[in-house]
Formats: sequence, C-alpha cells, structure tokens
Amino acid sequence: MNGKRPEKGITGTFYGVGAGPGDPELMTLKAVRVLNSCPVIAAPRSAGDSSGDGQALAIVRKAVNLEHKEILELNLPMTRDAGLLSKSRIDAAGEITRRLKQGTDVAFVTLGDPMLYSTFGCLAALIKDGLEGAAVTSIPGITSFSAVASRLSIPLAEGGEKVAIAPVAYDTGEVSGLISSFDTVVLMKVNKAMDALVDMLSDMGLIHKAVFVKRIGWPDEEVVTD
Amino acid sequence: MNGKRPEKGITGTFYGVGAGPGDPELMTLKAVRVLNSCPVIAAPRSAGDSSGDGQALAIVRKAVNLEHKEILELNLPMTRDAGLLSKSRIDAAGEITRRLKQGTDVAFVTLGDPMLYSTFGCLAALIKDGLEGAAVTSIPGITSFSAVASRLSIPLAEGGEKVAIAPVAYDTGEVSGLISSFDTVVLMKVNKAMDALVDMLSDMGLIHKAVFVKRIGWPDEEVVTD
Repeated sequence: MNGKRPEKGITGTFYGVGAGPGDPELMTLKAVRVLNSCPVIAAPRSAGDSSGDGQALAIVRKAVNLEHKEILELNLPMTRDAGLLSKSRIDAAGEITRRLKQGTDVAFVTLGDPMLYSTFGCLAALIKDGLEGAAVTSIPGITSFSAVASRLSIPLAEGGEKVAIAPVAYDTGEVSGLISSFDTVVLMKVNKAMDALVDMLSDMGLIHKAVFVKRIGWPDEEVVTD
Repeated sequence: MNGKRPEKGITGTFYGVGAGPGDPELMTLKAVRVLNSCPVIAAPRSAGDSSGDGQALAIVRKAVNLEHKEILELNLPMTRDAGLLSKSRIDAAGEITRRLKQGTDVAFVTLGDPMLYSTFGCLAALIKDGLEGAAVTSIPGITSFSAVASRLSIPLAEGGEKVAIAPVAYDTGEVSGLISSFDTVVLMKVNKAMDALVDMLSDMGLIHKAVFVKRIGWPDEEVVTD
C-alpha cells in the first residue's frame, strides 16, 4: 500500500485457474467453463522448460479456444533477487488490476493447483490490497503428485498412512528426516537438487524404490525407475 | 490367491475414477469421458453421511447420465473388523472381476482422488491378483484439501513451505508434532476425533487460526471459523 485510497466501483473478477499437471483432459469442467467465459487469460511469460508455471498456458490452449481473447503474458521471473521478484509481481498485479477496474474478468492460469506453490496467492493478495472490493476466487486443479500416483498405480496413502509434501530445493538435508517418518514423501522442484537427492537415496538404501517422473502427461513425459 | 490359475482372455478395463470432493463441476474432462464410456459404474453402497466414499456416486449422477448403465453398488463397510473388511473387499473385487471377464469396462468412482485414502488401491490389487492381464488404470481427482484451500483463499503452500497430510483418527497424539513442524497440516477423517482435536488446538493457542470445513462443495456445506 502506498497511501493512495483503493478505488471503488464494480470491477471484474480475478480467477486463479488450476490447469492440472499437463494432460488437458485433467482440467476440470469448472476450469474450462471459467476460461471460456473470461475475455482475458493471464499467464507467466514462457521462459523455456525451466519455468513451471509458463506451461499452464500450453495446457489451456489444447482445451479452450483462445482465439478471441486477450492473452496477458506476465513477466514473473523465478529469481532469488527479492527486489526483482517483488517488483515483477507488483507490475503483474498492476496489469491485471487495470483490466479488473474496466469491469473485465481476468483468469490467471497455473500449472497444477493455484493453492500449491503458485504465484497466484501473491498476486491475489496484491490485487486485494490495491483494489477495494476486488472479487478474487480460485478453481482447484489436479496436482502433479495425484497424476504421478495414478500413472504409476502407487497410492499416495491408504488407511492410517501419512504424506509429506516439500520443495526439495529448499533444504536437501531435511528430506531424509521426512523419508524416515512418513509413508509417502512428495518432493517438488527437484531439478537443481537431483544429484544430491540420488546420492542421499543411495546412502539410505532406497534408490531402488524411487521413481522419478518428469513432465507427467506431456508428449515428452519421462519415467525413470533406476 | 487361492491356488486357482487366473483366467486368460481379453478382459474389460477396471478404472478408478476420482469424482472430486463434491461440486460436480470439479470433475475432470477425462473422468466424465470415461464414465460416459463405461457400461458399469461401481460405487460403495450408500451408508448415510458416515460413509465418505458412498457420496461419489451422488456427485457423478449430477454430471453424467447414468440411465442406461448398470450401477454396481458394492458392500464396503467401514469397520475395524479385519475379517469382515477383507471378506467384503474380496467379494467386491469378485463382482467387478466377473464383469471384466465378460469384456465389460467397469468404473469404480471415489470421492476425491482414487490414490488418496480410497479403497480403489485395494480393489485394484485384488483384481490384478485374480485376473491375469487385467487392465487397471486410474484418473486423478481434485482432493478435498485443494477445494478447501480455494474455498477459503488460503494457499496450502508457497515458496519453501511444507505440507503434511494425516488421518487424525489414527493417532491424535501425533498431530501436535506435525503442527509444530509443518507450515500446513491437512487432517483427514476428523469426525470421531473432533472433540480431542478442538481441545488440543485450544491448548496450543491455535484454535483461533483453525477452520473446519464439512462437505465442501455440497449444498449443505459448513464452514466453521470459531
């Protein structure tokens, strides 16, 4: 907040829409309906394979006709530079808010679920801060780990079992503790920690039980069992 | 296995289909397509509100025309009697297998995701054991906690945060440990442990931060914030 009073009036709705992990058929009926009804589809600007969120728009294109919509590509770099991160998010929220003020609905598409490791939560908070009475809602999406469990026919949990979900990039040392105390451990964002992770699983004698799945549901899906 | 050789031949496919948490619009395009194509829809027999899985068929009825399909209601009681549990599952797997052997596809519908606290995994294992070459596949569903997070606009995890998912009915004592070490704790199957849980959260000084959601996405949904 910069002291300016948020503006009043009837505004558009800001939707966070989960596009699921890759297979466009894993989008929900609700996601498809909302995307069909929104004149503006916002998505992180594609930054090649390294940008997880940037893939959401590619999924949506396969299930929804975007021909007559505005595609609002947002510059949301994945960076450890806190100043740059903050500035890019404020700018993105500003772009969206400008359209909401005109009474236009905007759908921001995310890979997987908008409530799990997505920038949607941050954008929603910024938009609510800057635009009084802003209507913000989100539509859940299939998570990558649900899709992986179905793909491999390995239940995530049964009976009294417990599941932990953690971004491994954050702290590799913590992962072995989780593996010791949970029935299933879902590791997100493993890319950069892959070598360290393989070493750790080998040391724990668990590497033969590990399965690595990349780009679940995409044409270039990879399943590595050894 | 009872020593009999599994039978060979072209069989139907056994599908586990996630119906999501309650709102029929949260079914995926794939779930709807598969349910439309399957002549037999299997579901746990309704046992009133206490049976979570029994609600799956009610969701599906709102999104798929079941008029010309066989509805195979299976007797799958929630019981601590291991013998009864095992027998009911073997009987249910037998009913499904009989139809698969006739070349008929069977879809078993589950509340939420078939890979998370569902009897689908157990039925799939029994069917694979008894029917050589049985084709078994599953279609992920939106989980209750993804729907709750969207409903309340509270992200499950952002950045480096960790999530734990545990069935509280199993061990209430363990829950306070999870709450201390995770950013978000998803407690499943809380019904019977509700009083103990409220006491524990009060003792931890966290009760004002707890939200209880019942029957998310159903007409009788309840959101309790105090």
